Amino acid sequence: MNIILFEEKEISSTYHIQITDHRAKHIVKVLRSQVGDRVRVGVIDGGRGMAKIVAIKPKFPFSVDLDIQLETTLPEEKPVIDLVLALPRPIMLRRILSQVTSLGVGRIFLIDSQRVEKSFWQASLLQNEQYREHLLIGLEQAVATRLPEVSIYPKFKGFMDELLVKDLDDYSALIVADPAGTNTFSEALRQAGGSLRQGGRVLLCVGPEGGWVPAEVDQFSGCGFSICTIGERILKVDTAVIALHSRIMALREIL
Amino acid sequence: MNIILFEEKEISSTYHIQITDHRAKHIVKVLRSQVGDRVRVGVIDGGRGMAKIVAIKPKFPFSVDLDIQLETTLPEEKPVIDLVLALPRPIMLRRILSQVTSLGVGRIFLIDSQRVEKSFWQASLLQNEQYREHLLIGLEQAVATRLPEVSIYPKFKGFMDELLVKDLDDYSALIVADPAGTNTFSEALRQAGGSLRQGGRVLLCVGPEGGWVPAEVDQFSGCGFSICTIGERILKVDTAVIALHSRIMALREIL
Repeated sequence: MNIILFEEKEISSTYHIQITDHRAKHIVKVLRSQVGDRVRVGVIDGGRGMAKIVAIKPKFPFSVDLDIQLETTLPEEKPVIDLVLALPRPIMLRRILSQVTSLGVGRIFLIDSQRVEKSFWQASLLQNEQYREHLLIGLEQAVATRLPEVSIYPKFKGFMDELLVKDLDDYSALIVADPAGTNTFSEALRQAGGSLRQGGRVLLCVGPEGGWVPAEVDQFSGCGFSICTIGERILKVDTAVIALHSRIMALREIL
Repeated sequence: MNIILFEEKEISSTYHIQITDHRAKHIVKVLRSQVGDRVRVGVIDGGRGMAKIVAIKPKFPFSVDLDIQLETTLPEEKPVIDLVLALPRPIMLRRILSQVTSLGVGRIFLIDSQRVEKSFWQASLLQNEQYREHLLIGLEQAVATRLPEVSIYPKFKGFMDELLVKDLDDYSALIVADPAGTNTFSEALRQAGGSLRQGGRVLLCVGPEGGWVPAEVDQFSGCGFSICTIGERILKVDTAVIALHSRIMALREIL
């Protein structure tokens, strides 16, 4: 936890807050802070700053009183990559959500695919925004405050229909990672080079273990997606998501 | 498991093998193979090919007889990146070893650093090459056969001394990832561009949680390493290793 995050509604009009949960425990046990120390803080989807510890109860139940001074009022800029992810196994999804949030993504679309095990859709993680805590872990790691927006599409077609109508124009580059892909990432990004340099956004789609089925690849292709090879080595989805995100970020910087 | 791997000594002179362990279970339960089916196989640090199932016992204790036909005699080329890793927590090290092996690394140097918790050096994972099983998981995932070479240095100085005398000339680019870094990866790789295109190798050093201490960064710097920024977002070591490996691979392709 490299930043202590608050909900905006937790903070009083005098910018004072008392916390008694895992954040208080972290300040006491990990940071070993004392009264008078300052800690880095942020408001979820808001600004960042520092907070001075004005009172502390270092024994269970922990309690920490903070006076907050925000240095910014807005979160960092929206990351340029949005991620479409064929719904993975819940245990893997948890880790991916934290990791991609720490790397930076604007939106996360969790979608169905032929090779997604249907039982994954019953995961409690997807109910009542329980996934949100794993996004927060990623923000706390990365010292960021902008929460990725998560959209869930239990039908592949439902996702594609809505994307075509609503969101497709948001992107300068549309990339599907697939073992059968023939384009390289650098080719796909170079085609969009000019608009990427001007802040254009990238939509990256990562399939399930076993990959997208050909009919899905065809639909992406028909909508203008570039089907990109991920190299000869077969990667697990959690490794692939980080690897492909990083590949795009690196190439985007120098195109 | 996308390839069934064998030790060379397991294979008889007639290229027949009987397996009864987790590999047999995988063939029975996951691949659901029958007599006559073919599976992808490889020899650790050797070639790859296919094997025909000539007998199978599909109930516990599982047993599978295979006739092997190797199509190559050598493993894939040595990956161009070697990784120096400040020893992480054992549970994280396991995952990193599998993931970087699936991405492809030639050598892995596990070294000490000021901020490495000394208790990590007692991990059973480091005794008697117990880490090897996690490398194999990575090869099985990536359909590869070349096992990364692992070297363990419980002293930072011991590592640096040996590197300087023995191995430093093996590399076209020497990169330390550090939050305090000022170079970018693309600059560091571009400087080595010509030799990288001719197959030059890259040594990537990733510090512990909390980073290298300044004295360590100075030592790397004094030996000719380029100290590269990893961006504003602080990443966990397991995320960072994959992200930086992928960044180098992407940039290397287009320099």
